[in-house]
Amino acid sequence: MAKKNKWIADHITDNEYHLYKVKKVLVDKETDYQHVKFIETKDYGKCLYLNDHIQFAEKDEYIYHELLIHPALITHPEPKKVLVIGGGDGFALREILKHNTVKEVIVVDIDMQVVELMSELNGKYFQDKRVKMIYGDGRKYLEDTSEIYDVIVLDLSEPVKDGPSNLLFTKEFYNIVKKKLSKIGLMVVQAISPIHPYRKIHIAIYNTLCYIFPIVKLFYAYIPSYGTEWGFAIASKKYDPENLTKDEIEKRLTKRYIKGLKYYYSDLHKGLFTIPKDLLNDINLNKKLIITDKKPLFV
Amino acid sequence: MAKKNKWIADHITDNEYHLYKVKKVLVDKETDYQHVKFIETKDYGKCLYLNDHIQFAEKDEYIYHELLIHPALITHPEPKKVLVIGGGDGFALREILKHNTVKEVIVVDIDMQVVELMSELNGKYFQDKRVKMIYGDGRKYLEDTSEIYDVIVLDLSEPVKDGPSNLLFTKEFYNIVKKKLSKIGLMVVQAISPIHPYRKIHIAIYNTLCYIFPIVKLFYAYIPSYGTEWGFAIASKKYDPENLTKDEIEKRLTKRYIKGLKYYYSDLHKGLFTIPKDLLNDINLNKKLIITDKKPLFV
Repeated sequence: MAKKNKWIADHITDNEYHLYKVKKVLVDKETDYQHVKFIETKDYGKCLYLNDHIQFAEKDEYIYHELLIHPALITHPEPKKVLVIGGGDGFALREILKHNTVKEVIVVDIDMQVVELMSELNGKYFQDKRVKMIYGDGRKYLEDTSEIYDVIVLDLSEPVKDGPSNLLFTKEFYNIVKKKLSKIGLMVVQAISPIHPYRKIHIAIYNTLCYIFPIVKLFYAYIPSYGTEWGFAIASKKYDPENLTKDEIEKRLTKRYIKGLKYYYSDLHKGLFTIPKDLLNDINLNKKLIITDKKPLFV
Repeated sequence: MAKKNKWIADHITDNEYHLYKVKKVLVDKETDYQHVKFIETKDYGKCLYLNDHIQFAEKDEYIYHELLIHPALITHPEPKKVLVIGGGDGFALREILKHNTVKEVIVVDIDMQVVELMSELNGKYFQDKRVKMIYGDGRKYLEDTSEIYDVIVLDLSEPVKDGPSNLLFTKEFYNIVKKKLSKIGLMVVQAISPIHPYRKIHIAIYNTLCYIFPIVKLFYAYIPSYGTEWGFAIASKKYDPENLTKDEIEKRLTKRYIKGLKYYYSDLHKGLFTIPKDLLNDINLNKKLIITDKKPLFV
């Protein structure tokens, strides 16, 4: 009976919490890398929390995952080889495999226990012949590999002190990513919420990408189960996602036989890269904020 | 001491609450028309609640009020005469007065006690020679007046059972608004959150406007103190806000000497009218949902 009325509290700041009614706690444990909670909530279905930060909710994960993948993959004229760092839940993979240009996807996630936990939902995508799953540190994988990718997707948990993704948000790491991208390659990263109290780290991610890549574009969506707006960034060597015409986007979607999208389409892409003036001003006021291995930032 | 740790709970659904730490309760009373709370919160400054729905927070009210006013007023080539129904807090008025084309603004609010409560913050805008304040029922005012307006702004509290704004969201009312607009006039309305549990009423507002006006455009912004994304709609007789070029927007902003905007600018306007696919689909699935005097809808 006690569990019936349990709530999970999302800590926004010490002065703001969002409470969600819990239907059932499915998993609550420490893995070798992080604290994992898998909780069925009343309003949002099953939700995965890593180190107390929500990663996805069944009900609206399509918003995050479609935006993480499709603007980036559509911007590349023919993405064949894609690397995902993180993304062990398999949702980003599901979206990548919708592009029939893609011949090979490598997923590198550090936490086998998370991947296994999600296998009931998304195990089938890892069975696809085009997919190779590697358990390990994404940064080490990228340093060591001789492979070159068309698109690299950083589907990471938020950087928290002693968390597994701290050194995957730094200038040094983005430089490694750049080296492992083809001449016309691009990367995409979930870039944390642009809303307080995360705005500074969001801006720092943007600045750090700008330090390494010639083209960096931010975009946003409100994700109900996160209770806030979320940010993404595409960093690109040649193609600017904002320069695609509606016609080009639609041609690529059709040519690649992409179907069943719930959130992304050509008009959305065209309106995606607008930044409100207050955020633009804050970016201009914080131009020197860069994330380095020696000075990582934590949410 | 007790008040020090008090929280105000924003009821999203029975399964979701957002909690904000209260610094000080400034006002908590029933007026003749509604329950008014004026509360200073730790993170968002002073916040006004009408019938337990947040109306504004000092810290981020500029987002709501700039979006309510500027896309609509910029779409009109020369707005001279503007009517505000609701908006007794004076913030919408502050934004309207930034357009130097405006020669006359009538504000009709039913609740004198709210206007008086806000006078310390915004009383100065009501002192402007161009402004006339009328206390009364907005619908009755509009039915009785022989005046014709360039722009009509509906800055209303959410429709709640027995609340003061129920009959200001209906087909019959929008028809009265249309009659009191000039041939090239337009109206703008805060159109509730498009996110559950409000999505149906948001769609119903859109459908109802489409029933009366030839051009209706939706747009959105995430407002941190609301803890959700918020919707707006422009309903227009002649000019489509989406057809303005960046150049035209900038020319109008310059020509009208508009300065000090924190959120709105030409690029934002250009990217504003994109609707995600899931919402488009829900609109298409609910085409018959119309709000009438006999069948009002409540949040």
